[in-house]
Amino acid sequence: MTYSELSNLIFEKKSYLCVGLDTDPRKLPRHLLTEPDPVFAFNKAIIDATADLAVAYKPNIAFYEAQGPRGWESLQKTLDYIPANCFTIADAKRGDIGNTSDLYARTFFDPTAAGLSFDSVTVAPYMGRDSVLPFLAYEGKWIILLALTSNSGSADFQRQQVGDQELFEMVIDTAHTWAGPDKLMFVVGATQADELSRIREIAPDNFLLVPGVGAQGGSLEEVSRRGLTASGGLLVNASRSILYASDGIDFADRARIEAKALQEEMAKHLANITKF
Amino acid sequence: MTYSELSNLIFEKKSYLCVGLDTDPRKLPRHLLTEPDPVFAFNKAIIDATADLAVAYKPNIAFYEAQGPRGWESLQKTLDYIPANCFTIADAKRGDIGNTSDLYARTFFDPTAAGLSFDSVTVAPYMGRDSVLPFLAYEGKWIILLALTSNSGSADFQRQQVGDQELFEMVIDTAHTWAGPDKLMFVVGATQADELSRIREIAPDNFLLVPGVGAQGGSLEEVSRRGLTASGGLLVNASRSILYASDGIDFADRARIEAKALQEEMAKHLANITKF
Repeated sequence: MTYSELSNLIFEKKSYLCVGLDTDPRKLPRHLLTEPDPVFAFNKAIIDATADLAVAYKPNIAFYEAQGPRGWESLQKTLDYIPANCFTIADAKRGDIGNTSDLYARTFFDPTAAGLSFDSVTVAPYMGRDSVLPFLAYEGKWIILLALTSNSGSADFQRQQVGDQELFEMVIDTAHTWAGPDKLMFVVGATQADELSRIREIAPDNFLLVPGVGAQGGSLEEVSRRGLTASGGLLVNASRSILYASDGIDFADRARIEAKALQEEMAKHLANITKF
Repeated sequence: MTYSELSNLIFEKKSYLCVGLDTDPRKLPRHLLTEPDPVFAFNKAIIDATADLAVAYKPNIAFYEAQGPRGWESLQKTLDYIPANCFTIADAKRGDIGNTSDLYARTFFDPTAAGLSFDSVTVAPYMGRDSVLPFLAYEGKWIILLALTSNSGSADFQRQQVGDQELFEMVIDTAHTWAGPDKLMFVVGATQADELSRIREIAPDNFLLVPGVGAQGGSLEEVSRRGLTASGGLLVNASRSILYASDGIDFADRARIEAKALQEEMAKHLANITKF
């Protein structure tokens, strides 16, 4: 998916909602447990209930990996089921020396490898340039680099002063030399809204993937005010608040209600934006 | 495996060799391709040929993940096959917010999750304390935190000045507040030998996992001189130089010759050490 296709999708759907598929087999509604693949059955119902409201889906790879081989099968089926008019994110936070990052890139981008072809993958920056470049070699694919994350531990290293910047700002500046905004997004936690304006100054054109609205306590209003651009420029993720709105047979309906409330607020914020 | 068990193993086997199982299906000897699981058949032969010479095995998870579900099956079989007197490392470089790191920890440590029970996992520090703590909750298990990696990109962020330290030194100092040397190792690239002495000053008791000898050009002599301690204190990894010493039917014999050469040099360096 190209930059302008993603931007168009946001204004067409009046949404920058990303639904995080952090599907935990221990939290599934009981009636799904007799399905041949309960994780996929759950994801399918969530996708059916939200596909017109969301512009992106983000399976959190840890949840699938923790199920061993059958988790990877659920992931493949889930990815295949996501409609073409939704951007897909492998939330994997990978990063290793070049020859190994090359394999991680194949895993998530090359369907002949692990049967997966995501639009994007989240990447950790600690190992630097040659750990990131292999992910950029795939045409039409994106990387989403960790910059300032939503968790409390983000203070430990990301917020440290390096010269006249904090480390996360240096990561953003450095990454600009690796790829343009047509292939490069950044992760910025919604719990870090104070810094979002500063990040928009140094990353005016990049899409930002913003987790932390909902269960983690970030404010959609503040994130939108500081982060929206003429291209949209945001993918705001909600996972638990949508997925686990109910653990009964009404889980998909309740998920839709949660997603709809977020989408309707997003539509209002987008109405204030003049599309590029 | 405990700290003293690992230390004893090193002096008993006169080796601190870690064999990196970066098993690439595209590089397997041809005669293995008719096996039901060529990757496992290769690993089994490599383990048989080196188990008396190595104290640790380190499957590089990217290589298995890139094969999809069947790669995870090869990984399970490989881990089950590694003898009990060898330390096992999941080289996964994971790290995410707490509830997600918890799942990654389950993946590699809890055999009821993905069928895997490694002794240790490599972890990326960028997301800080709460991204690392879930891995420390497992008794008898270790984390191996990225500090100063072997690749050129290590200069981008790890070598940046943060106050009166470089970032990798701050990572080491900070991590000391999370766990003791009985559960915490650091990754230090062999290509960074100049810094090894400095790292030994701030991490005198921690085991260091040192990749980069062999294909990446690091010197075993220099690493040993600067890194060995009275407990051994080193796990020096070699992957490609052992695994792909030959691509013929003699691959396991040739792997043994490469491993034996490293082990014999290690035995000499250990002879200069008074065991704690």
